[in-house]
Amino acid sequence: MLTSGLDDRIPDLELLYRDLHEHPELSFQEERTASVLAARLAAAGLEVTTGVGKTGVVGVLRNGEGPTVLLRADMDALPVQEIEKVPYRSRATGVDPDGVSTPVMHACGHDTHMTALIGAVEQLVANRDAWSGTVLAVLQPAEEVGSGAQAMLDDGFLDRFGPFDVALGQHITSAPSTHLYLCPGVFMAAADSLRVTVYGRGGHGSAPHTTVDPVVLAASIVMRLQTIVAREVAPNEVAVVTVAAIHAGRKENVIPASAELKLNVRTFDPDVRERVLAAITRIVDAEAEAAGAPRPPEIAPINGFPLLRNDVATTEAVRAAFTEAFGAGHVHETTPKTGSEDFGLFAEAAGVPSVFWNFGGFDPALYPDDPAHPHAAVASGRAPGGHSPEFVPTAVAPTLRRAVEALLTAAAIWLVR
Amino acid sequence: MLTSGLDDRIPDLELLYRDLHEHPELSFQEERTASVLAARLAAAGLEVTTGVGKTGVVGVLRNGEGPTVLLRADMDALPVQEIEKVPYRSRATGVDPDGVSTPVMHACGHDTHMTALIGAVEQLVANRDAWSGTVLAVLQPAEEVGSGAQAMLDDGFLDRFGPFDVALGQHITSAPSTHLYLCPGVFMAAADSLRVTVYGRGGHGSAPHTTVDPVVLAASIVMRLQTIVAREVAPNEVAVVTVAAIHAGRKENVIPASAELKLNVRTFDPDVRERVLAAITRIVDAEAEAAGAPRPPEIAPINGFPLLRNDVATTEAVRAAFTEAFGAGHVHETTPKTGSEDFGLFAEAAGVPSVFWNFGGFDPALYPDDPAHPHAAVASGRAPGGHSPEFVPTAVAPTLRRAVEALLTAAAIWLVR
Amino acid sequence: MLTSGLDDRIPDLELLYRDLHEHPELSFQEERTASVLAARLAAAGLEVTTGVGKTGVVGVLRNGEGPTVLLRADMDALPVQEIEKVPYRSRATGVDPDGVSTPVMHACGHDTHMTALIGAVEQLVANRDAWSGTVLAVLQPAEEVGSGAQAMLDDGFLDRFGPFDVALGQHITSAPSTHLYLCPGVFMAAADSLRVTVYGRGGHGSAPHTTVDPVVLAASIVMRLQTIVAREVAPNEVAVVTVAAIHAGRKENVIPASAELKLNVRTFDPDVRERVLAAITRIVDAEAEAAGAPRPPEIAPINGFPLLRNDVATTEAVRAAFTEAFGAGHVHETTPKTGSEDFGLFAEAAGVPSVFWNFGGFDPALYPDDPAHPHAAVASGRAPGGHSPEFVPTAVAPTLRRAVEALLTAAAIWLVR
Amino acid sequence: MLTSGLDDRIPDLELLYRDLHEHPELSFQEERTASVLAARLAAAGLEVTTGVGKTGVVGVLRNGEGPTVLLRADMDALPVQEIEKVPYRSRATGVDPDGVSTPVMHACGHDTHMTALIGAVEQLVANRDAWSGTVLAVLQPAEEVGSGAQAMLDDGFLDRFGPFDVALGQHITSAPSTHLYLCPGVFMAAADSLRVTVYGRGGHGSAPHTTVDPVVLAASIVMRLQTIVAREVAPNEVAVVTVAAIHAGRKENVIPASAELKLNVRTFDPDVRERVLAAITRIVDAEAEAAGAPRPPEIAPINGFPLLRNDVATTEAVRAAFTEAFGAGHVHETTPKTGSEDFGLFAEAAGVPSVFWNFGGFDPALYPDDPAHPHAAVASGRAPGGHSPEFVPTAVAPTLRRAVEALLTAAAIWLVR
Repeated sequence: MLTSGLDDRIPDLELLYRDLHEHPELSFQEERTASVLAARLAAAGLEVTTGVGKTGVVGVLRNGEGPTVLLRADMDALPVQEIEKVPYRSRATGVDPDGVSTPVMHACGHDTHMTALIGAVEQLVANRDAWSGTVLAVLQPAEEVGSGAQAMLDDGFLDRFGPFDVALGQHITSAPSTHLYLCPGVFMAAADSLRVTVYGRGGHGSAPHTTVDPVVLAASIVMRLQTIVAREVAPNEVAVVTVAAIHAGRKENVIPASAELKLNVRTFDPDVRERVLAAITRIVDAEAEAAGAPRPPEIAPINGFPLLRNDVATTEAVRAAFTEAFGAGHVHETTPKTGSEDFGLFAEAAGVPSVFWNFGGFDPALYPDDPAHPHAAVASGRAPGGHSPEFVPTAVAPTLRRAVEALLTAAAIWLVR
Repeated sequence: MLTSGLDDRIPDLELLYRDLHEHPELSFQEERTASVLAARLAAAGLEVTTGVGKTGVVGVLRNGEGPTVLLRADMDALPVQEIEKVPYRSRATGVDPDGVSTPVMHACGHDTHMTALIGAVEQLVANRDAWSGTVLAVLQPAEEVGSGAQAMLDDGFLDRFGPFDVALGQHITSAPSTHLYLCPGVFMAAADSLRVTVYGRGGHGSAPHTTVDPVVLAASIVMRLQTIVAREVAPNEVAVVTVAAIHAGRKENVIPASAELKLNVRTFDPDVRERVLAAITRIVDAEAEAAGAPRPPEIAPINGFPLLRNDVATTEAVRAAFTEAFGAGHVHETTPKTGSEDFGLFAEAAGVPSVFWNFGGFDPALYPDDPAHPHAAVASGRAPGGHSPEFVPTAVAPTLRRAVEALLTAAAIWLVR
Repeated sequence: MLTSGLDDRIPDLELLYRDLHEHPELSFQEERTASVLAARLAAAGLEVTTGVGKTGVVGVLRNGEGPTVLLRADMDALPVQEIEKVPYRSRATGVDPDGVSTPVMHACGHDTHMTALIGAVEQLVANRDAWSGTVLAVLQPAEEVGSGAQAMLDDGFLDRFGPFDVALGQHITSAPSTHLYLCPGVFMAAADSLRVTVYGRGGHGSAPHTTVDPVVLAASIVMRLQTIVAREVAPNEVAVVTVAAIHAGRKENVIPASAELKLNVRTFDPDVRERVLAAITRIVDAEAEAAGAPRPPEIAPINGFPLLRNDVATTEAVRAAFTEAFGAGHVHETTPKTGSEDFGLFAEAAGVPSVFWNFGGFDPALYPDDPAHPHAAVASGRAPGGHSPEFVPTAVAPTLRRAVEALLTAAAIWLVR
Repeated sequence: MLTSGLDDRIPDLELLYRDLHEHPELSFQEERTASVLAARLAAAGLEVTTGVGKTGVVGVLRNGEGPTVLLRADMDALPVQEIEKVPYRSRATGVDPDGVSTPVMHACGHDTHMTALIGAVEQLVANRDAWSGTVLAVLQPAEEVGSGAQAMLDDGFLDRFGPFDVALGQHITSAPSTHLYLCPGVFMAAADSLRVTVYGRGGHGSAPHTTVDPVVLAASIVMRLQTIVAREVAPNEVAVVTVAAIHAGRKENVIPASAELKLNVRTFDPDVRERVLAAITRIVDAEAEAAGAPRPPEIAPINGFPLLRNDVATTEAVRAAFTEAFGAGHVHETTPKTGSEDFGLFAEAAGVPSVFWNFGGFDPALYPDDPAHPHAAVASGRAPGGHSPEFVPTAVAPTLRRAVEALLTAAAIWLVR
């Protein structure tokens, strides 16, 4: 059994998890993280390569004839200040691409992904006689900016480590621990991030008539952008237009000369995507004209994620394996999510199927005396979401155990005959 | 004549101006500036005290019996990046009160004020036989944040350097060089700067429904604030409500948990001021409710300026002296300005009259071949205003000469019998 | 065959259609329409009752033993001015519930529904030997305001004409003629219409500061309402919030004392419906506070439609019959629509299944030389939608033929053994 | 004395006032009003001409040699529903230029102007021996739409009734009864009324993506227009941009194809006027582009008022006469008002001076037990303003008396030697 001995391994995995949680690093800056994980893979006996796609790590575990299974976890954290009061909470800071210092937190749970992958690999090493084939342990950087998978591919990933037969990955979600969630077909949205810079004319705060106020222009754009999803996208189509950042001005009595917005767009359909992006351009340009702006706005892409599609037949095979292993009550079909992922690029580049699933990480029963605790809301689907400063799993041990089991159970479809 | 020998002094004053322009410093950080000016005053033979109100400088020039005249210039610059292409343009940077590094520029012309004050003092020293009395040369820090005059007063200014009989000050403006502008009575507005923090609930950019979006809330507030001046203030009353800064969010796919606005309010009438401040509170609070904000907003003062009132009779005396010295064609009555000044606090504290006037600093004739140059617009009143990255005087020598002459001519009312 | 002789009947049905199209009537005012149809049903030999639910008509066609099938068409038109240039275009006017005169048009295609129902009944009469059972021909008033079905039920419909075994209905759509569209389960949205009245304080247009401007308040509400769908509803949930009417003020220099909005809300899920309605109330109330309104707003329901659910098994039976009759290429599965219908109330009240489907009414091939004609866009799904002043079917004869065939084919499931 | 016997005349004038108040008529529809007044003038012995400028009335009172003084009152009322609870309140209705029925009210106090003019004429007739010269009693229609004075001039007024030496007029205001208010120079604003029609694409309320929503477009324009006064007009310049009417849509589930706004602009300076009108056009056009409107908006003038300027020397003469007659405590200098008037056109056309003043019409002392009564606020300048449904004078007798006295006192400057 691939899971033999897992019980005894959980305490150690929980320590690894706490260490990773306490030391988060921003995208493409996962130096310490990569070093810790590479050492761990090497200690387990894998051939380890670091620096793949800047900070990525690949471990190869060969165990005789058979298919090659790629297991992938992502390593980067987010510029978020943790507010959950666990003893191992992050106090880390980092420097973002704009050169600004920022608190950093594993607010998207990549620490659980990495820990589960290490756990699965160590189980595979410990139970070599239970399987045959090859496992590629891929620790990808920079998932949050949609660039890490492509960076590893651009760094010769396929030539250096391929080919492989299937790619498997997973992501924690705001759901009860030990439960798994699968979605055949389109699972996660295409994402486009844009930087919009609008130009006014600066001046003294007391003399607005000598200026073109970029703050009012930016605010008007934000209000107008709401109409795209509300009025221009068909009600049964899915689109999200988020203005996640807005920045203009410094001093309270100096009207600035420009303002910057960061937009994030999510869509499931290429036509809707085109329509939304065109509407953004139309609105931004026209609002600048309404303001009498002296220069047209600039709209530049920051990054982008492709659609993530699960291969339907392979998803069904994984679902069957999960159901047999964990019972139908713990395996759920889920709907497409507006979140995004670059995991799919590995299998797309190799022309093989891939499956990506969610595992729950919260336990409302842990808060019997505090129904107001945000995590107590998980049963009603209102627990803190990814990227929230409160996104810290509660049921750590059962969460990690099930995540390791899920990777092993799915991989066994190919590795155990 | 107090102005004897001024012609020969202008080239040296222009060098001082260029040096000050090239080395601007933020409020209460005027270390180098204070050091340069203190040395200059000491070299001229004044008793010099530094560190008055943190970085302020006071020079005392005694010349026999007679009234004491306070001449004041302000020293601080602004967090603005200079774009005018003069060879002595600023490349300086500073660190603002939030700890953020920023370009710095004399975008409000305080460099001309300081240079003119040094020039006037040096003329008074050079022409000691032409006058009698005492001159207080006050180089004030932190005018831009409305705190420098109060800081000097709080540091015992009156006890240490008072009493005095009149306070005189001046400010450059976007008008033709050699022209002077006076306004009896209320001259500059009361200013209130506020920091507004609104709270939402953060989350992933793809899941707006799990959040309360503070960017949309802030944008809605900005749009709604426009209605105060447009609808709630009587058309013939004066009010300005500027949102000079807006900041929220960092990463393009993380909806932030809060947003911050910096507001600047200008009024000439205490009732209008109360009405405008109450409307701001009403709108900010209600917009937070409209957003379903989990916490009420916070509205905190950043700083404030009092009304600046010129003593009417003293202003008439100065006007008469200017008219006799420069001709009626160069002396103009001007209307109250929405800009603000803390100059008035010195005279208010001492219970004596004060006069503050504007002098022009631009020459459209310098751009005969470039009517599109922003400075070419000065004749039509559309030159770059104070706090603009283009606010650099063109006619430097005539501007400085007239500013020195104006100080000497006004001071002579008390010093020359 | 129920369709025997249909070819010869089409020209006469087209005349009936043109007559109905030329004489549209508003909801609950369908006097002429009811009279024309009642006469036609009587001429065909049915027992006819008029005035059911004010202007509704019920015809009973008994033909031996067997199930009772309810066939329903709706009769009312809309306050829209027709701009399509067919010779039989409407020049009718009516008086709306507010007492205002308005142009009237069959902009939702109820004229095709009525004509098809008459055609089907006349076919059943003409082919009595091909079926047995009872047909209830229900011509319902006031579908557009969601009140007609309930009015007929409140008028004793079930006691007077029931029971029945199944209810069948259909609606024209912007799709190619001869094609049919079915959706098992939830097919059409719940709709809630609300009247929002906001109060300001009126006054002279030149003195806004003496007023509370309800126009600005209403505009701010409209902009803020956009955020409900854009930010508060999950991206994969369906909701529509439309402000279909806004009215305030009369004279250009009198600021009015109030403003009125008419809202229309569409949802597929009761939780989403509650959330959206709560958000509307929250936003309207808070915006009134932001305006300093002297009185709170009033939010009153205008009307409402329930969800329309097609019985899944019955829908499959209809689909099978359609596919056999018209070929799989002409029968499509469609997705839930945000439009609304009160058709479902008949079957709900009777506790029997019902099915409602769409039939296409446009033919892009009719505009080979005019690709810019709005109807030429039907292939791309961008033809004029219902309630548009251009919503007039192009392929009248094939459209009517297929609509009659569809009713007969579906009814035959119960009537032909 | 021109005022001899005025005491006895007041009760009759109050009856006339109540009659006029109870029977208000819209602009250019002043048929009954003109008839009542013409009869009254004829009974007093004047030569009366009716139908001057459609419904205007001119009475000529000749009394020997001497100057000709034009006294003018305006006759029209407003489409406002009266809510003040006086027994003689208006229940009248009228039909506005759009053909819509509307309540009508003398909400701008023209009834007091007419009554005072009749009173003054009757006093002049009764005291013929106290003066000599000619009086033109001008009862002008359609002041509210800025068209009545021009219509009378276009109807040959100068040729038929001129020349004259001075034009005098007055307007009630929200101030204490018996007080008079004068303003030399520019007294009232230029007014421009505009009709803005924006075009979208109509459709079903449930399918916003098939439409271009003109309601959202109109709301966005309203919000954006607020920035003109708030940001583009210098704080010490005067401008008002009012959206007094907004209309779109009829049925709650039909998205309309267009929306209409009525704008009213007030300015005191031609440059500001140009700037504001240009900004309106810029914003309306750009917002339509932001909406993706299928047709550009239309902006059409409704009407316009010129600036009203009081001749400075003549105003001083009237002020001196008022001060002598009523005491300095009852004569006040007032500031320019943003309201508008076409009175000035008569004197402009004739090339003679004119003076227009305000008289108070309210008495807060009448509400000793009801400090919450809106009229009780007159002392603080917050009584209901003109065009409000509550604008009904409280102190009728003293108000009328002072208004008659004011006309006679001013006219006596020319008529009594």
